[in-house]
Amino acid sequence: MLGIVQRKVYNFYMQRIKLVLEYNGSKFCGWQRQKNARSVQQEVEKALSKLFGKQITVVGSSRTDAKVHAMAQVAHFDCSQEIPVSKIAVAVNSLLPDDVKVLCAKKVGNDFHARFDVKKKTYRYYLYKGKKNAILNDLVATCDFPLDESAMQQCLKLFVGKHNFKAFCASGAQVKSYEREIYDARLTKKGKYLIFEFTGNGFMQHMVRILVGTCVDVGRGAIPLQQVQAALESGKRALAGKTMQPQGLYLKKIYF
Amino acid sequence: MLGIVQRKVYNFYMQRIKLVLEYNGSKFCGWQRQKNARSVQQEVEKALSKLFGKQITVVGSSRTDAKVHAMAQVAHFDCSQEIPVSKIAVAVNSLLPDDVKVLCAKKVGNDFHARFDVKKKTYRYYLYKGKKNAILNDLVATCDFPLDESAMQQCLKLFVGKHNFKAFCASGAQVKSYEREIYDARLTKKGKYLIFEFTGNGFMQHMVRILVGTCVDVGRGAIPLQQVQAALESGKRALAGKTMQPQGLYLKKIYF
Repeated sequence: MLGIVQRKVYNFYMQRIKLVLEYNGSKFCGWQRQKNARSVQQEVEKALSKLFGKQITVVGSSRTDAKVHAMAQVAHFDCSQEIPVSKIAVAVNSLLPDDVKVLCAKKVGNDFHARFDVKKKTYRYYLYKGKKNAILNDLVATCDFPLDESAMQQCLKLFVGKHNFKAFCASGAQVKSYEREIYDARLTKKGKYLIFEFTGNGFMQHMVRILVGTCVDVGRGAIPLQQVQAALESGKRALAGKTMQPQGLYLKKIYF
Repeated sequence: MLGIVQRKVYNFYMQRIKLVLEYNGSKFCGWQRQKNARSVQQEVEKALSKLFGKQITVVGSSRTDAKVHAMAQVAHFDCSQEIPVSKIAVAVNSLLPDDVKVLCAKKVGNDFHARFDVKKKTYRYYLYKGKKNAILNDLVATCDFPLDESAMQQCLKLFVGKHNFKAFCASGAQVKSYEREIYDARLTKKGKYLIFEFTGNGFMQHMVRILVGTCVDVGRGAIPLQQVQAALESGKRALAGKTMQPQGLYLKKIYF
């Protein structure tokens, strides 16, 4: 009799769990749950709900778009303490499809919030220097024309700092302010790949893809650096470069 | 009037075209056309039929399985001479989905046959030494236990030569003879990848995946080399190793 009462009391205490997730976005409509489409959030909630035997809702740090990948998306959810935290990752992974994986699960304070507590984020973009490749198509963008890398490096320097990035986000983006700060913007070369990496306090929809697209347009001589500067100052989307395809984009790290 | 007659005569002459194709097999049921499933053959035939304005049938060199990739599958088809051969690749690619691509198209003799004329084939298998990776899941197999590479190299040596490979093919494979000759079997290490490569005069269904699986079973100490030898001599499937997952397998080259 006492056992039942104790168990009930024990279950009553909820704990907040932080998940770090890796996923291949190619078969997803993005992170966020949508009707009649396969989202990462829905797959993770389905697996967690099955594991805990009740409806679980997760809150993600970033709403990655369709086809965008994550090396380390972060999410939180609340659950009872019936399943030891150390077992959650393995248990959820056994219920998740092959293109989503929990890298780690740990207990955090009840006031931790995966979206509101984000300090900065790092995104990576892979551009393969060569012809379109059918095998790698879901994982990288391709570019088979010559690029002036030194001009691209100069372009990246313009992005660093606190700016109004209105020209560099999807038109119709619902945001209170277009101001964001980019702490670091770099381009490294590895074999046939150009790897762009941006770290900032926040990124609006399509922002990284437009930053990279602008760099590429500068690199191929379609946009002069002054125009990039003018885009930052005027907020005119037409002055910035094209939106790169989502396939090359990876949410790399979230800092709290 | 004469023009119409000439055009008809011109169309009457058929030519045989050899295609080299690259594809990502992850969203396909395999090469071969199947009812209610997406096959590479069907996608290529659909694109060619649209291009030439009539039903085109292609004959492929290899019937790759579901999820198996090709760096250079070969196929042939017959068509009228209305479209210059030099334009076929670009034209077909504009009609193909992103996960199939024609690398080249060239005119061959009318007696060329993509399946019957094959002299040898090379298959590659990518094994990632690490934990299962959600991002790379469609492109590589993973293995997170230690492997004795020297034992694996010895295992590969046993496969080279003319053997009865009955123990190394899918049970129920419909073949006249289980004899095949492997000219070369090698294992190279590149960063965190183990890359297996087999060149032979022919490979039965699942054969490369079972050859690699046997190597892995030898490498982790589950199967002694003598048992591999016994599998080759007896043809008993139970003596060979497991069938590796299709995702790591690539049809690399076909020799005529």
